[in-house]
Amino acid sequence: AIIDTLQASPGQRPAEGLEIVITAGPTREAIDPVRYLTNHSSGKMGYALAAAAQALGATVTLISGPVRLATPPGVARVDVDSAEQMLDAAERAAMTADIFIAAAAVADYRPATAAEQKIKKGSEDELVLRLIKNPDVVATIAAGENAPFTVGFAAETEALEHHALDKLERKRLMMIVANQVGGGLGFDRDDNAATLYWREPEEQIRSERFDAQPKSALAEKLIMRIVAHYRSATSA
Amino acid sequence: AIIDTLQASPGQRPAEGLEIVITAGPTREAIDPVRYLTNHSSGKMGYALAAAAQALGATVTLISGPVRLATPPGVARVDVDSAEQMLDAAERAAMTADIFIAAAAVADYRPATAAEQKIKKGSEDELVLRLIKNPDVVATIAAGENAPFTVGFAAETEALEHHALDKLERKRLMMIVANQVGGGLGFDRDDNAATLYWREPEEQIRSERFDAQPKSALAEKLIMRIVAHYRSATSA
Repeated sequence: AIIDTLQASPGQRPAEGLEIVITAGPTREAIDPVRYLTNHSSGKMGYALAAAAQALGATVTLISGPVRLATPPGVARVDVDSAEQMLDAAERAAMTADIFIAAAAVADYRPATAAEQKIKKGSEDELVLRLIKNPDVVATIAAGENAPFTVGFAAETEALEHHALDKLERKRLMMIVANQVGGGLGFDRDDNAATLYWREPEEQIRSERFDAQPKSALAEKLIMRIVAHYRSATSA
Repeated sequence: AIIDTLQASPGQRPAEGLEIVITAGPTREAIDPVRYLTNHSSGKMGYALAAAAQALGATVTLISGPVRLATPPGVARVDVDSAEQMLDAAERAAMTADIFIAAAAVADYRPATAAEQKIKKGSEDELVLRLIKNPDVVATIAAGENAPFTVGFAAETEALEHHALDKLERKRLMMIVANQVGGGLGFDRDDNAATLYWREPEEQIRSERFDAQPKSALAEKLIMRIVAHYRSATSA
């Protein structure tokens, strides 16, 4: 029951009636009031997915880390800073969501303690920053009771398929979007290539490859595919 | 011999003939290809200083960390990422500079090693990030042979005067601009308040306070003051 076309006809609203929650951007993990740990995620892919989902008829909530992007028209945006704030917002939004797409690059670790005042540089030549594991946002949502149809992202510099399939299984996701970082693609770029992986019921892993293209075009194809898989899974 | 007016008359070019180098923005210290340490500096103050110095007649080189700001017209901009790159660019530019103004928020520490591939989250609940001290850009420039007239910045959340005076002496600066971070002022804001400190020849510390105002207005006053002190110091 998977639809085969990935081009939405004008006026087509395949996501009509669906509530889709999308996370986007990096998180910032405070070391003190001025310093933080973060990553190169621009949020562009998550914002493109939100715009596409809205255009295809869904009610969209976009949970966004700190980025410099305009909110897509018609999309409800919730701004967060840290991984813990992103999890809070995601858990709230996921309660009523049909589909949850985790495009954010959530920091895996945060400083064990964030200083209340700026840490002064001492005379030490070395400093040890103790980091503790952040909550795993997408795995937490996927493991919840009445979990939405949960889709993850894997952005990797190497061994992309291996890491993506590992994440798909370990985090119990319905689908995962894998994309290579570096080489002019991925973070902070306008173009992106991706491979979508999923496990067919009682079958092997299936995948579909999308060549490098503007993130807006890729986002529409991904939303079409995800919505089709969701409808197939829930009508079964 | 300090001029008393801080308002430049139209067409007045008190910085004519001077070469001024200004650093701006944060630095990014790579943990791996996607993660990094940084801080909340927006670069706005440094860019405002560069624009003001150029308008007042100076030849300006702006050494900039990663920011989202347009280069002021007529200013030569050198983009850098890390503290080490900023020091390289600063040492090169300082060789011919009359005045060096260090407005950048250079990271004090960087990861001891930057991984070539994205570090995978392991099963460890804790992680230790070993940091080593970055070069001190402004102190290195001030300590150089034939050093330019070097001006530092102190952005602090507490004990502002104490930390600013300590920096002035310890780094052998000619002047230091102190500004409070937080409370709607400082990093990533358009307004700023500041206090300029300097040591009169064989005299005590002197200071001049500038109330909260747009960074462009504050920048013009600071450049007027710095240029006047420079001319006074070199004509003595």
